Amino acid sequence: MTVLILTSKEDVTADMVVTRLHETAVPVMRLDPADLPDDTVLSAHYTHGDFEGLLSANGHVVSMRGLRSVWVRRPGEPAAHAAEPSAWLTAETRQALFGMLYSASARWMNHPRDADRARLKPWQLRAAHLSGLAVPPTVVTTFPRLARQFAEEYGEVVVKSASGPPPGEPLELPTTLIGPDSDFSGVAAGPALLQRYVPKRADVRLTCVGSRVFAARKTAEPHQIDGRYGDTEHTWQPVAAPDRIRRSVHDYLARAQLAYAAFDFAEDEDGFWWFLECNQSGQFGFVELETGQPISEAVAQWLSQPGGR
Amino acid sequence: MTVLILTSKEDVTADMVVTRLHETAVPVMRLDPADLPDDTVLSAHYTHGDFEGLLSANGHVVSMRGLRSVWVRRPGEPAAHAAEPSAWLTAETRQALFGMLYSASARWMNHPRDADRARLKPWQLRAAHLSGLAVPPTVVTTFPRLARQFAEEYGEVVVKSASGPPPGEPLELPTTLIGPDSDFSGVAAGPALLQRYVPKRADVRLTCVGSRVFAARKTAEPHQIDGRYGDTEHTWQPVAAPDRIRRSVHDYLARAQLAYAAFDFAEDEDGFWWFLECNQSGQFGFVELETGQPISEAVAQWLSQPGGR
Repeated sequence: MTVLILTSKEDVTADMVVTRLHETAVPVMRLDPADLPDDTVLSAHYTHGDFEGLLSANGHVVSMRGLRSVWVRRPGEPAAHAAEPSAWLTAETRQALFGMLYSASARWMNHPRDADRARLKPWQLRAAHLSGLAVPPTVVTTFPRLARQFAEEYGEVVVKSASGPPPGEPLELPTTLIGPDSDFSGVAAGPALLQRYVPKRADVRLTCVGSRVFAARKTAEPHQIDGRYGDTEHTWQPVAAPDRIRRSVHDYLARAQLAYAAFDFAEDEDGFWWFLECNQSGQFGFVELETGQPISEAVAQWLSQPGGR
Repeated sequence: MTVLILTSKEDVTADMVVTRLHETAVPVMRLDPADLPDDTVLSAHYTHGDFEGLLSANGHVVSMRGLRSVWVRRPGEPAAHAAEPSAWLTAETRQALFGMLYSASARWMNHPRDADRARLKPWQLRAAHLSGLAVPPTVVTTFPRLARQFAEEYGEVVVKSASGPPPGEPLELPTTLIGPDSDFSGVAAGPALLQRYVPKRADVRLTCVGSRVFAARKTAEPHQIDGRYGDTEHTWQPVAAPDRIRRSVHDYLARAQLAYAAFDFAEDEDGFWWFLECNQSGQFGFVELETGQPISEAVAQWLSQPGGR
């Protein structure tokens, strides 16, 4: 029974997990959907009242019946590396590959349909609240007057991108602190996500792998807004997650039907953890390297479990 | 409690349903996501431990708490009509709109995450088989030798597009009949869907709206391959769906979590119905016009039902 890893060629985080899987002799196929159809053969048969499918790459063949689990790491666009790439070829290849994989009974980390929903930040806030996590007051709006009212009510607010960095920007947009006197007219041109600023003494990264929870904490500089920017002398340190938080993140994963998720919390000056976001494909390599927490081993173990979903 | 219809301005099928909804005085908001953010205001608040959202267009305001159901008909790309459209603005607007709608407790026809899966033709074949429908032997492959073997085994096969028409083509690609002597080398450049040819005496269109089933039948010309091409003097006529088929399509809808679906069957020379495909957003206007079956009324009734999911 094989573990299928969908990711691009350069992916050191996947390398860490592949190393663990090799140690336990679990068969692995690593595949970039971008390499279809030139370097990877795909065939799905619906004949004689039965279904069978296979993938063949680099001399290895995996049948859908022999598929244990699928790890969707950082896959490229289907057929992106084809000799004559096109939007249509990508659509046809996506149909063939995912239509076949969805027909198998493998376990997914994470299933694309659950991943798509879990990426929606407004949905995350709602799911976090329903799971019992504390969410800072937030508004997502295209209405300048409501944005200004929100900033007036909460004093200091941060503005964030909902979907990620704008194209052409060299780095992600850092979360930015603004006051009620800011110019909110630009909100009308594109939805803005405003959130009450949480003065924090630490960032918390909580990585969930199935039912296992790895929490790490990094002391923040005073007035540091975005934990990803402005290096400090502090490093990530393992920390125990409170039971209340453990129960809530398990509830969140069940609600979102995710097998893997990386939560970001802000620890405020009273030691209280505020939910900021949940990234269903968040990196864990940097946490494992600094804390020594065996996250890649946990991922490998989850993927290795026998049986279908 | 309002019915939200996501569709483009020109949509006569939506017009038919809106007329029915107006007759019963159910409030309707019709919205094209392409018109965000310039012509439609969106605002979602996660404050005071609660969630509230609203959409405002053409002087009408709908709150998420007052949302009865969402009909995803033919929506445009979010923010496609913006003054300065961009892929990033589309991504941010999609996040804001669907993140907010997913947080409401409205009923969906159909939910985008179920629609995405239901579009995958290989998944459809598997779901149809598991639901007890007869599926003609089919292969989806990028391997020329397997394509040729399949054609040799079944004699006459049809080749189809999995995802729809290639860009730049004026019409959809008709389903085409080929023999085992064809050149299959092109299969290596892009996945092909080959299916055993079913010699048919009629096309069957079966439209499901919730638990209601509307079947229609149109006599085929001898040797007519694709029912969508080659006009005949025959028209769509109402036909009773066999109980076995009714049970199977109900099973399919439950499996796919769809509230609406249009099935295409081929009726063979023995009167047996073969599953060809299931289109979760298939048109029904042409069937209603020719058969008089009250499909738009059924859609309006489904959307009008009170309460959340």
